[in-house]
Amino acid sequence: MHRPCVITLLTDFGNQDAYVGVMKGVITGINPLANIIDICHNIPPQDVFNAAYLLYTSYKYFPRGTIHVAVVDPGVGSRRDIVCVVTKDYFFLVPDNGILSFIIQDEKPKSIFRITNSKYFLPSPSNTFHGRDVFAPVSAHLSLGAKLRQLGIKINQLKQLDIPKPDYKKTGQLEGQVIYIDRFGNLITNITKEYLVKGVGGQRSEVGMQKSEDRINQRKTTLKELFSLCNTIETVIGKKKIMGLSKTYTDVKPGEPLVLIGSAGFLEVSINQGNAQRYFKADKGSKIIIENVR
Amino acid sequence: MHRPCVITLLTDFGNQDAYVGVMKGVITGINPLANIIDICHNIPPQDVFNAAYLLYTSYKYFPRGTIHVAVVDPGVGSRRDIVCVVTKDYFFLVPDNGILSFIIQDEKPKSIFRITNSKYFLPSPSNTFHGRDVFAPVSAHLSLGAKLRQLGIKINQLKQLDIPKPDYKKTGQLEGQVIYIDRFGNLITNITKEYLVKGVGGQRSEVGMQKSEDRINQRKTTLKELFSLCNTIETVIGKKKIMGLSKTYTDVKPGEPLVLIGSAGFLEVSINQGNAQRYFKADKGSKIIIENVR
Amino acid sequence: MHRPCVITLLTDFGNQDAYVGVMKGVITGINPLANIIDICHNIPPQDVFNAAYLLYTSYKYFPRGTIHVAVVDPGVGSRRDIVCVVTKDYFFLVPDNGILSFIIQDEKPKSIFRITNSKYFLPSPSNTFHGRDVFAPVSAHLSLGAKLRQLGIKINQLKQLDIPKPDYKKTGQLEGQVIYIDRFGNLITNITKEYLVKGVGGQRSEVGMQKSEDRINQRKTTLKELFSLCNTIETVIGKKKIMGLSKTYTDVKPGEPLVLIGSAGFLEVSINQGNAQRYFKADKGSKIIIENVR
Repeated sequence: MHRPCVITLLTDFGNQDAYVGVMKGVITGINPLANIIDICHNIPPQDVFNAAYLLYTSYKYFPRGTIHVAVVDPGVGSRRDIVCVVTKDYFFLVPDNGILSFIIQDEKPKSIFRITNSKYFLPSPSNTFHGRDVFAPVSAHLSLGAKLRQLGIKINQLKQLDIPKPDYKKTGQLEGQVIYIDRFGNLITNITKEYLVKGVGGQRSEVGMQKSEDRINQRKTTLKELFSLCNTIETVIGKKKIMGLSKTYTDVKPGEPLVLIGSAGFLEVSINQGNAQRYFKADKGSKIIIENVR
Repeated sequence: MHRPCVITLLTDFGNQDAYVGVMKGVITGINPLANIIDICHNIPPQDVFNAAYLLYTSYKYFPRGTIHVAVVDPGVGSRRDIVCVVTKDYFFLVPDNGILSFIIQDEKPKSIFRITNSKYFLPSPSNTFHGRDVFAPVSAHLSLGAKLRQLGIKINQLKQLDIPKPDYKKTGQLEGQVIYIDRFGNLITNITKEYLVKGVGGQRSEVGMQKSEDRINQRKTTLKELFSLCNTIETVIGKKKIMGLSKTYTDVKPGEPLVLIGSAGFLEVSINQGNAQRYFKADKGSKIIIENVR
Repeated sequence: MHRPCVITLLTDFGNQDAYVGVMKGVITGINPLANIIDICHNIPPQDVFNAAYLLYTSYKYFPRGTIHVAVVDPGVGSRRDIVCVVTKDYFFLVPDNGILSFIIQDEKPKSIFRITNSKYFLPSPSNTFHGRDVFAPVSAHLSLGAKLRQLGIKINQLKQLDIPKPDYKKTGQLEGQVIYIDRFGNLITNITKEYLVKGVGGQRSEVGMQKSEDRINQRKTTLKELFSLCNTIETVIGKKKIMGLSKTYTDVKPGEPLVLIGSAGFLEVSINQGNAQRYFKADKGSKIIIENVR
């Protein structure tokens, strides 16, 4: 009855307590063959946006059938729903608080279930640790093949975060902002390469994000287009300006700033072997302006 | 000869070195099918009490037969014993320094063995890294079915930490203290809900902690009793007072303080979506007084 | 076609992002039976020396056939090579930046391959995240039995770091330096016990490091020799002097300094249950002088 299946965990539980380990204990007790993989547990407490970004940049690198469990859940114990969202290749077991906002821009859910059947929870679930008492056992039962219509009831809507979009200015500028900063201090913006190509190429209509599979297939073309168009852009951050678009960090000398399209497809401001967050004294929300100098 | 088995690890080895990875290498070399699960590795260096608390709140969420290995071991290389403690459902492989003090209040060990047979250690064990040279290989051999009477000799006693107990005052107050602070800044006290029910209900005799299984089974009843009794309690921390007992964080507005029974069964002082440690400038050992206002 | 195999990961990706999780997703998608073990992910950004030290102290505790993947890679996307180094028992998949410098002092590689065949990479690899796009898929294919001559081409040379060696002074002193500081603040030096024995015993010729297997086999003899010789040494760090050589931390009182041969075979300055880095205000590179008082 046990089946191998990948279950990923993304939480704000950190590394100093035992919350994550306990979730793994519960899952393993129900499905000893579950292959549990940590995506990240150091989301700043209750930062749903941060979790949404990381889940978006990660989920499609896991095998088909993976159950992605994300517990960044400021509303734990309240009336917020716990939902299971099914896409073409994945299951997402999450609180309904917008944590899938990036992902559903890419792919429309095939179905959404509100998880309600406490038969699949731990007995007498607490009001404060649904990771242990609800998410862990439900994900384990899912990995064993439990049917979603037994776990809960179908619904149609998900809550959405307000994801800031880049803005094409009448002056010919593209204005975005820093949405994520990684360990290396790289400033990751909401400007996708599609925006950049359209923006620099002169088409001003909003393009949004392409479907992820297309994006992977078309990466070469897009990059070629990108590099043919973008050698002349200028990126303004604070009072500083960075010329051109690099392909990788080492295109400039150690300690020097650069702009590139990062590994998740977003425009990124970096320092080769340095820390752009400290260098630019930037933070989440800092404005990034792309000047189209043609 | 290899067998699937869960081995958990709890250490103060942190995340910046390779000590934990090396332990996993040793275990996997002996039993490739061992399913190794991290409980926590960021115990403050040598903080046995902290480790004892986290192990207590975690162990029973793992499948029967799990081998719990805890290496917070200020006496490494000295004459302190390494012991394997067998309970109804689990094995605990630990230094004999009181790290099981919370657990053995809940369940009496079935047997205790001092681990002495160096045949099951790495060859020429070091004096400073028994995690690698003793705990890891012994746990792996245990997971393969090695007999405890081959690993060492039976003993009767375990060292115990002095766990502070809440105190019923003649004035009708219940005085406890903060024993653990988690990543979110939640102040977890030594006041169990059993103490609170008895205290508030007027029985002054010391109740201790119930057996964990009973506690799980009786949680609903106890909670009902708790909530019927406790709406009027007041919790005093420093110069501040919190009225009543909440069921979950979101019972109050974001940024506001509350008191609830946390997921491990202890009374906890929290801030909804905030950090109670910073808010109350509290620390481990800070006094918490429950005033029975009836 | 899937095969169980241990793949270890050592990176500077930290715990706050999803980079490590994504690598595991890619590996698991290619070989669901891969047993992925973290060695460490908190290498200071781009600190190849630190990674080289940790890999050296870890690799031989993993089972034969383990694929060690280390991604501390300041040259990502540049012309630096990615290599697979084969030793008697292990595979190392690393950027060619000196990260194996400690290890190849111990064992001569049997063969070295530059990884070039993009058939084994993710499609359209990025220039900034080779951990995901190259290292992860190549390690997974290796674990499935892919042949190295299909993955790349044989080469003869590896880049090397400049590892500082201890220095025998004409005054009879042995001068080394701190090369690593662990979580506990232990100051780990480049002085191996072989240097110490020769140094204190009066032989001044450079001995280098012995082959690791020999070292393990001969540990008892060496230690005996060490302790018979070394009771009278004095270790000078800054303006402070520590007498003798201890066997373990608890040889001195809590809070007192000591010198011992640590679990990786290097001389280490410690404080029993304290932090030697803070106590001595030392850092990487700090000088350690051993005075041979005979």
